[in-house]
Amino acid sequence: MARNTSGYNGLFIPGPTNVPDKVRQALNVPMQDMRASDFGELTFPLFAGVKKVLRTQTAEVFLFPASGTGGWEATVANLFSPGDRVLMSSFGQFSMLWVDMCERFGLEVEHCAVEWGLGVPHDEYRRILEADKAHTIKGVFACHNETATGVTSDIAAIRAILDDLGHPALLCVDGVSSLGSLEFRMDDWGVDVIVGGSQKGFMLPAGLTIMGVSQKAMERRVTATMPRTFFSFDDMLKHNATGHFPYTPPTQLFHGLQASLKMMFEEGLDNIVARHNRLATAVRAGVHAWGLELCAKDPATYSDTVSAIVVPEHMDSGAVLKAAYERYNLSLGAGLSKVAGKVFRIGHLGNLNEIMVLQALAGSEMAMRDSGINIELGSGVAAAQACFIQSADEQQISRAA
Amino acid sequence: MARNTSGYNGLFIPGPTNVPDKVRQALNVPMQDMRASDFGELTFPLFAGVKKVLRTQTAEVFLFPASGTGGWEATVANLFSPGDRVLMSSFGQFSMLWVDMCERFGLEVEHCAVEWGLGVPHDEYRRILEADKAHTIKGVFACHNETATGVTSDIAAIRAILDDLGHPALLCVDGVSSLGSLEFRMDDWGVDVIVGGSQKGFMLPAGLTIMGVSQKAMERRVTATMPRTFFSFDDMLKHNATGHFPYTPPTQLFHGLQASLKMMFEEGLDNIVARHNRLATAVRAGVHAWGLELCAKDPATYSDTVSAIVVPEHMDSGAVLKAAYERYNLSLGAGLSKVAGKVFRIGHLGNLNEIMVLQALAGSEMAMRDSGINIELGSGVAAAQACFIQSADEQQISRAA
Amino acid sequence: MARNTSGYNGLFIPGPTNVPDKVRQALNVPMQDMRASDFGELTFPLFAGVKKVLRTQTAEVFLFPASGTGGWEATVANLFSPGDRVLMSSFGQFSMLWVDMCERFGLEVEHCAVEWGLGVPHDEYRRILEADKAHTIKGVFACHNETATGVTSDIAAIRAILDDLGHPALLCVDGVSSLGSLEFRMDDWGVDVIVGGSQKGFMLPAGLTIMGVSQKAMERRVTATMPRTFFSFDDMLKHNATGHFPYTPPTQLFHGLQASLKMMFEEGLDNIVARHNRLATAVRAGVHAWGLELCAKDPATYSDTVSAIVVPEHMDSGAVLKAAYERYNLSLGAGLSKVAGKVFRIGHLGNLNEIMVLQALAGSEMAMRDSGINIELGSGVAAAQACFIQSADEQQISRAA
Amino acid sequence: MARNTSGYNGLFIPGPTNVPDKVRQALNVPMQDMRASDFGELTFPLFAGVKKVLRTQTAEVFLFPASGTGGWEATVANLFSPGDRVLMSSFGQFSMLWVDMCERFGLEVEHCAVEWGLGVPHDEYRRILEADKAHTIKGVFACHNETATGVTSDIAAIRAILDDLGHPALLCVDGVSSLGSLEFRMDDWGVDVIVGGSQKGFMLPAGLTIMGVSQKAMERRVTATMPRTFFSFDDMLKHNATGHFPYTPPTQLFHGLQASLKMMFEEGLDNIVARHNRLATAVRAGVHAWGLELCAKDPATYSDTVSAIVVPEHMDSGAVLKAAYERYNLSLGAGLSKVAGKVFRIGHLGNLNEIMVLQALAGSEMAMRDSGINIELGSGVAAAQACFIQSADEQQISRAA
Repeated sequence: MARNTSGYNGLFIPGPTNVPDKVRQALNVPMQDMRASDFGELTFPLFAGVKKVLRTQTAEVFLFPASGTGGWEATVANLFSPGDRVLMSSFGQFSMLWVDMCERFGLEVEHCAVEWGLGVPHDEYRRILEADKAHTIKGVFACHNETATGVTSDIAAIRAILDDLGHPALLCVDGVSSLGSLEFRMDDWGVDVIVGGSQKGFMLPAGLTIMGVSQKAMERRVTATMPRTFFSFDDMLKHNATGHFPYTPPTQLFHGLQASLKMMFEEGLDNIVARHNRLATAVRAGVHAWGLELCAKDPATYSDTVSAIVVPEHMDSGAVLKAAYERYNLSLGAGLSKVAGKVFRIGHLGNLNEIMVLQALAGSEMAMRDSGINIELGSGVAAAQACFIQSADEQQISRAA
Repeated sequence: MARNTSGYNGLFIPGPTNVPDKVRQALNVPMQDMRASDFGELTFPLFAGVKKVLRTQTAEVFLFPASGTGGWEATVANLFSPGDRVLMSSFGQFSMLWVDMCERFGLEVEHCAVEWGLGVPHDEYRRILEADKAHTIKGVFACHNETATGVTSDIAAIRAILDDLGHPALLCVDGVSSLGSLEFRMDDWGVDVIVGGSQKGFMLPAGLTIMGVSQKAMERRVTATMPRTFFSFDDMLKHNATGHFPYTPPTQLFHGLQASLKMMFEEGLDNIVARHNRLATAVRAGVHAWGLELCAKDPATYSDTVSAIVVPEHMDSGAVLKAAYERYNLSLGAGLSKVAGKVFRIGHLGNLNEIMVLQALAGSEMAMRDSGINIELGSGVAAAQACFIQSADEQQISRAA
Repeated sequence: MARNTSGYNGLFIPGPTNVPDKVRQALNVPMQDMRASDFGELTFPLFAGVKKVLRTQTAEVFLFPASGTGGWEATVANLFSPGDRVLMSSFGQFSMLWVDMCERFGLEVEHCAVEWGLGVPHDEYRRILEADKAHTIKGVFACHNETATGVTSDIAAIRAILDDLGHPALLCVDGVSSLGSLEFRMDDWGVDVIVGGSQKGFMLPAGLTIMGVSQKAMERRVTATMPRTFFSFDDMLKHNATGHFPYTPPTQLFHGLQASLKMMFEEGLDNIVARHNRLATAVRAGVHAWGLELCAKDPATYSDTVSAIVVPEHMDSGAVLKAAYERYNLSLGAGLSKVAGKVFRIGHLGNLNEIMVLQALAGSEMAMRDSGINIELGSGVAAAQACFIQSADEQQISRAA
Repeated sequence: MARNTSGYNGLFIPGPTNVPDKVRQALNVPMQDMRASDFGELTFPLFAGVKKVLRTQTAEVFLFPASGTGGWEATVANLFSPGDRVLMSSFGQFSMLWVDMCERFGLEVEHCAVEWGLGVPHDEYRRILEADKAHTIKGVFACHNETATGVTSDIAAIRAILDDLGHPALLCVDGVSSLGSLEFRMDDWGVDVIVGGSQKGFMLPAGLTIMGVSQKAMERRVTATMPRTFFSFDDMLKHNATGHFPYTPPTQLFHGLQASLKMMFEEGLDNIVARHNRLATAVRAGVHAWGLELCAKDPATYSDTVSAIVVPEHMDSGAVLKAAYERYNLSLGAGLSKVAGKVFRIGHLGNLNEIMVLQALAGSEMAMRDSGINIELGSGVAAAQACFIQSADEQQISRAA
């Protein structure tokens, strides 16, 4: 079947997200000299702005021309040495891939493999760290928001464990699908490394890893022996000092970041977090109205940026995606790896509003029906609409007050 | 209340319409020399393409840098003389305005004022034309699709009357909100002047009047004494002969038109008409599910490009628009003039698909509820979804066949 | 010969001009509802900004979706009646065309045909106005900058004549190729109508007539009987009062105008005028170095926005244009009408700097040599470079002071 | 001094280069699902197109979201093991940096440090390789075009040495500033790894490493033990097989690459190489006319993509850059590292034509004079113009033939 390509594609994957028009305008620039004396007028405010988003006063910010995977690699390459012991957990495609990377780079991974649908296993982390009296564990890794299953883990709780035990391991966090969308507090939570990407909450095209590294972590790089050049913090720091870069950076993304940071601060970081919560709550009300379950087991870990929806047994979530894409020009997120065929995902992050979410739900309903899943048409939409009317009322009252 | 500006605005006014991304790309051009010897390589195919859209072999095509109102004025200025008698009808804001223009320009307008919600009064036209044995009526005007009320009139039927009576008046048609979306056949229907605008079915920004003028009408300009320069067919023809224009044309819109024509021919004119019918049918199913009525009285005249929905008595359609825009970033069409406050309009034309329509319906439902209109949430969406599933099935079968 | 299309086209026609990148970004917008309640947030500042550019406190500003020709027609249609006597002069293609339009619209034109290369004939204007004791002349028309010949006329001097004689005629000025580039003072000079276009000093694509009309002129419209709708000041004023338009306006150009006005005020109107003078002075130094003459006879009328350069006798300026365009991807302005084949023009207005001017001169030198005109390669460039070095020095000193 | 920012910046650094308008249009896309089933419709032709540019039938092509530095690192990480012996030479900033990277990654570098201004030392390479009877040298590295000094080395000659000696080392080439501009023949020259970047001859923004890897080199990755994930050929190959990527790729650059490849094939690779030679020849004629020398010592190695121009002793090339940028909005390339202050560079690659080159020369002349370098204004321009007139004549004759 030739696919239906009329109108705009409804993009509801959990990234890349819908680029706001102001950002699209900003990206439309000619090339420029990245060695110009005044290049820092463009780049210095970006570092400052990202620090604000990370809610850090003291961390170093890095902008690598790469994807989030590059940020993971920068973490490993700059801060660890082959044979270093690290504590990691996997409960989805992305947490799993970071484990795989660390193993490839010769780290000795203490790997907690968790059921997909759960998050970071705090108790097991505590047990292992407690047992590590000699502090041989150099890093504790955590995926803040597992994009594959829609599970958000409690990062502050991991910091509390480390502090409680007086354990000096670096706390390294994957925030690719949380930064700029979910609450994140680098300094308050004592995060040592946070890895983000341009194409999620920052509402940009892919192509930029956005990282924060604590001063404590920065010290580790002196003794870390893993080889690095492209992802070298040192090379980057040296050139960033004058606003420049060790190699040709993607300047058009810098202009886009300038625009997206402006939008984020105009909306307000707290308001952004609240908006994501409002939109996600409505999605979940819709899923409930359909009589379906989320992949995330524990309501406390429901992600406000992506919902992985479990299709009924013997049904194929791939058929939902196919129908959505080919019949209705709607892009949903696939089930990956262990949950392939079992879940489909609705990304609800970044540049998003109520009517966009309703579009995703309405389209999903049709695609599910097309795939033999017996949900009632309009039911999820109605449940979400009720949430939106209520939250719009509340906002109106709060603004009037 | 500060308005909700998150995400993309849902643009469902009956024009300007949603510009496709390929057209947005095409518009992004540097300026160029409009007197260059090879400028015709850009413009000649535009004239040919527009003729194809108008389904004419013989008419002249004109592209004026103006809105549809400019096309109305070009018609009057080139083809008529002060005091000329013309037959017109009004049944909405736009048909009314053309009458007003003709009166300002000193035409003697035989004006059939029709109840808003109806279309061109064929019987009255026949009666008047039949009575005009001396053929003093020089032009018969008709609004193909009245954007204010969502009523499509039968143009072929007017031609049939004229032919039946052997009346030589020019048949002048406003196709601003029909061209490129609804069936239109200039040659088959014997249309002498058709006026369109770039910002509707042509899926471009506003700024271009797109007109077709029959050879019979072209002859009239020789004797027509109304003054003209900016809208002069003669000046335009003379320069168009070499691919040029009598004054600086909006070249970026030409590049956009090149792209939109390409898209239109790739989809196929018949397919475009069928798509508009599918989408409109679903909108009407939604309205029916809400228990509301269209402004258009006769199902045979229901417009496939815009639906004007009558709110219950004592309700204010303005409140629906306001809630939609301020609370949900959704732009709907207002009731204009005689139907102000009584109807709101959903534009469903141009670059549009199923999930976009569902977004409009879902948003309208919330806005109606916010305005005290007691419709059931999700009901219109569900009715439209059912239509879409069925039509997607039918398309799939037809493609497989 | 297939033309050389590598690299960027060098656009040195006297309009459309080179759109700045910030304006290109601003133009890249989705469509929006031009009837939205907050549309005035976009449009009100545009009216205010244009007034600032026109240097008027009291005039009305109009933005019509048309070319400059449309602004001429708006002047005639709103402020005059058939049979009105007007004083006009022609000395180039554009001043000539306005005369032609006025004649078509039934004005009784007192036409001073002046040798091309001269400007408004002040003495003849004085003589005719002095003789018009009965004040039958309703309008005095003047082309501020004749784009075809590169001649700038003294508008303040015409006002002085009118004031001196106590003559009440409206002073109507064509500022299409002067506004935003040359000194222009609507209030100080007592200009009643000024007509500009988006595609010159405003650095936008074509598609917008930008006009100012004095209150004295506005009063004339009450009695003026010429028919009008598309260009009606009354319809426009009524809708502009709430920030709206009587028909669908070209909103993307409004966003572009917002950006270009911002750039203009950041540079400063006086600085813009000074920059145009600097660049034009260097062009003229180059022409002098080539041993060629300008079409403009009197140095006091040399235009700072366009130079029309006379090729040696028996040479064809068309060959220069052809060589420039086909061999070097350089667009120069043609000689029009009476000076066709005799002059070629370099547009030096809008978004322009020193190295762009040098590009135009360097390319012109090659194209002249290719056409058999015996100038010394590099000679015009060197002369202009010397000007630029000196002016850069002066600016540096002035900034340091 | 506030810098002069009027008009367009003249970008004549040796990359990023001037993005053609068709590519800028192509970059202006919304985000899309990089896991969509039809994503390969976009990506497969890119791989095929790049192979055509590399003139290879058999190599694998890789597109990493990184700069050229990333391509160097991918080479090291996938094909070598710590302790591997490699033969390298440095004669400029970029060849030097690759040496530094290899050393950081633990390779044992046989480093030929050559005077800057010369190229790959073929004789020394032969001597060393000849002495390596045991074939302990696993890779021979060469910088095809040293961007810092404007020196092009003969890659085919290195292959000849290797073949002559029967030496199995991989031939790894940095083609960042040569690919898409200079003659390059991967298969004919037996190149095993070629590293390019998007922002040079491919005329795109930075953000994409474009690589080719021979099948012989691909086999090496099986035994190579350097750790890799982000730059893993294996991960990339696995996903590329279905048109997908192991992590979110920069899709807007893919659309840009699609457009730039189309332009390249329309112009023809041989014609592109010839054009670069024409433009570079004229630049060198200009430098000669100034009485200055190139940094490149040997005319046989003069680069057709960048010229490094030596300023007279006791002069500061930094002053030339500063004057060019601040006074004339012209961006030239700085002297880097060993030649800092001694040379300035004109990049003449990518989307470029004759009048753009003349702009660079004319601006450089002013900036040199401003910096106290006593060249004659217009002299370099005139020399280049003479070249361009002649080559335009030759092209015209050749086309006519």
